[in-house]
Amino acid sequence: MPTQFDPPSGTRDFLAAELEVRERAFEITRDVFARYGFEPLQTPAFERLDVLTGKYGDEGDKLIFKILRRGEHEASGEADLALRYDLTVPLARVAAAYGSRLPSPYKRYAIGPVWRADRPGKGRYREFVQCDLDTLGSASLLADAEILCAVNDALTELGIGHFTFLLNSRRALAGLLEAFGVPEDRGASLLITLDKLDKLAPDDVIAELVTRGLPGERAADLVAVMTGHDAVKAVRAVLESTEAGPAGLAEIDRVLELVTPLVPQDRIVFTPRLVRGLSYYTGPIWEVVAPGMSGSIASGGRYDHLIEALGGPDVPACGGSLGIERIIPLIPRADSHRTGRLDVAVAVLGDEYAPQGFAFAGAARCAGLRASVYLGSSGKLGRQLKWASDREARWCLLYGSAEHTTGVVTVRDMTTGEQTAVPAAELRDHLARLATASDA
Amino acid sequence: MPTQFDPPSGTRDFLAAELEVRERAFEITRDVFARYGFEPLQTPAFERLDVLTGKYGDEGDKLIFKILRRGEHEASGEADLALRYDLTVPLARVAAAYGSRLPSPYKRYAIGPVWRADRPGKGRYREFVQCDLDTLGSASLLADAEILCAVNDALTELGIGHFTFLLNSRRALAGLLEAFGVPEDRGASLLITLDKLDKLAPDDVIAELVTRGLPGERAADLVAVMTGHDAVKAVRAVLESTEAGPAGLAEIDRVLELVTPLVPQDRIVFTPRLVRGLSYYTGPIWEVVAPGMSGSIASGGRYDHLIEALGGPDVPACGGSLGIERIIPLIPRADSHRTGRLDVAVAVLGDEYAPQGFAFAGAARCAGLRASVYLGSSGKLGRQLKWASDREARWCLLYGSAEHTTGVVTVRDMTTGEQTAVPAAELRDHLARLATASDA
Repeated sequence: MPTQFDPPSGTRDFLAAELEVRERAFEITRDVFARYGFEPLQTPAFERLDVLTGKYGDEGDKLIFKILRRGEHEASGEADLALRYDLTVPLARVAAAYGSRLPSPYKRYAIGPVWRADRPGKGRYREFVQCDLDTLGSASLLADAEILCAVNDALTELGIGHFTFLLNSRRALAGLLEAFGVPEDRGASLLITLDKLDKLAPDDVIAELVTRGLPGERAADLVAVMTGHDAVKAVRAVLESTEAGPAGLAEIDRVLELVTPLVPQDRIVFTPRLVRGLSYYTGPIWEVVAPGMSGSIASGGRYDHLIEALGGPDVPACGGSLGIERIIPLIPRADSHRTGRLDVAVAVLGDEYAPQGFAFAGAARCAGLRASVYLGSSGKLGRQLKWASDREARWCLLYGSAEHTTGVVTVRDMTTGEQTAVPAAELRDHLARLATASDA
Repeated sequence: MPTQFDPPSGTRDFLAAELEVRERAFEITRDVFARYGFEPLQTPAFERLDVLTGKYGDEGDKLIFKILRRGEHEASGEADLALRYDLTVPLARVAAAYGSRLPSPYKRYAIGPVWRADRPGKGRYREFVQCDLDTLGSASLLADAEILCAVNDALTELGIGHFTFLLNSRRALAGLLEAFGVPEDRGASLLITLDKLDKLAPDDVIAELVTRGLPGERAADLVAVMTGHDAVKAVRAVLESTEAGPAGLAEIDRVLELVTPLVPQDRIVFTPRLVRGLSYYTGPIWEVVAPGMSGSIASGGRYDHLIEALGGPDVPACGGSLGIERIIPLIPRADSHRTGRLDVAVAVLGDEYAPQGFAFAGAARCAGLRASVYLGSSGKLGRQLKWASDREARWCLLYGSAEHTTGVVTVRDMTTGEQTAVPAAELRDHLARLATASDA
């Protein structure tokens, strides 16, 4: 039941524990992409409305959050700006704006929120993070293979143990359509049906192909080739006999060859039925699937004319996108990751000892630990120890008149209750040793 | 001259070099705040319109970016959402929404963009990052002092060498007004005039005080006390004789005492003229100034009733804000920080050696280096070395038929031109050693 204090429909507040997991995932991903020589890019949350409209089709245009004009123009009810819908249109704008001042090829990654006025639902948000990497200005299949390797490394370093790349090529699909006599203008809808072979029974796919205009016998032959005992071999044989097919096969084999040193061979498979819904792909296409997930956790491909169509320069390009919102729930949570918790709680046993408490907390921070003094109003030890325990502190520092007289601070182990008197001057080194020992 | 490819007025595209400096600054700040036991919070970019309106005064309300309703409601020209204007109103909403599920006190930091439809100008943007830390639920001056220490550490770790905290207290200001017989309802405007003592000549300040209703003699006395030889001592003497003043002095002295272990004593000064424009402060207030900067680079104070006024629970609170957009240009740029550049460039001297190139780039990444294979179409060594040089690579790896025959890879030092043949299996360790040696 939403209350007046909930965030707007389809958006989320991230408190410490969840936010730290997310930030860590972004950091790992950034590090991997940077090691591949991709550069970060950040563009504004909103763009001029005309930059965005007409780029996502009619359905997409309806999902754009538009920003009302301001001041005297507000009453017009018109919009002049809009929240970005993805990270690709801003990339096209940047490529147009900076041109030759960008390196060539321009390898960039972008990780940031986008906004879509979609109907909110389970796992579907109106504000969500996209995570893209793209190479503009290289027609080489090395660029495609490099993106695939970077995505492989990112998923691996994020701790996703089992996943598989499904690889295909738009040219191979063109060869397939050619082999079965499908006219080019019918190709797109037939391919979308073919892609359902992983969800529907073969007969249902055949029936749908027929309703889309493929003669019944050809539809049956096509599905038989795609679903037979050694489908890949059968499809290869069919493609070899076409005009477009051999180039597609060569493209697939080259990508498989290039990634071999970095991606385990059983983790990437030529998948003839893989289509990728979007029409703008022109070369290799791929998706990453993981056990227990419906749909993909990453995807990408070559889209040599898209940047121009989006208002940018005419450059060959390829890219990939991590479905980071779907990936984050899959990341193993290490129990040892102490999100938003304290290492060292410093009790304040009398106003006169508070400055010393600040010094002790400072010493703990110098040892790389998270430390805070007690900020409540109670002078009672029991209350302060309860606070330390609530904050899941590993150690609590006690300093009252007895410690003051002898120049020590009492370090209480919050797990065992054991207390050790440590000379104040040695506190930092002592805590550093404790932290090293307990992390080991 | 803006072009159609520029980002919207008042917003910025961040390319690699600048973005990496910014991200690094945010990371340092996050680390410092986390070490103080502050938790991160992230709220959506937009809030329901009614959450924001009426919170920032009439002038503020005009600067809110409003989002048009969607679908069938778009034609109404009405807004139902708005981009956040600051990070404090969302904090109040979160405090109301999560209540006792938040730790007590709730110490949180937030670093993220806010949007204001201000007239863009030098250093003034419509999209800019705010960086706030606040403690909700503690009335203790330890909370005020802790925030001040955290800001001190953050500025220090960001590399801002020279800066000074100006400290005052709203209670001390109340005592000052009392001493000079200013009625409470006139207090605010008189204080704003008084704060101009750092910019205007004393006589101009006296004249302005008179226009604001203070009798001429009292205005002259007030300014004399504030600008005399030992102004702090004189103000202290005046305040001691008032009803409100002693509590203000006690507050200031306690904060000074508490921060002593962590903030060098000459870095924080009681500054009687400091007012802080906003009316919601109730206790200690402070600003950080740095040489060569007009205005402050950080500020904060105690605001015990603001969270309730903004729609949250009635909790005592204090906080601080780093002016991170003003601070980033002050951060010293280490020449060694290789933003967006390559460490290792891998030449591809023949299609058949490309997979091996992928393996070499992978080995370099395992050694923690940024590495990329050449993605262009030229097979010529000269062109590829130019690319390596353009990307400011430290080393270029060469692998052609000669290397293939002997099982080595040629490592070319891009600075000296010196070339070393390294057995392929030893490449990773070799590069790791080179990197360690050159960083040392």
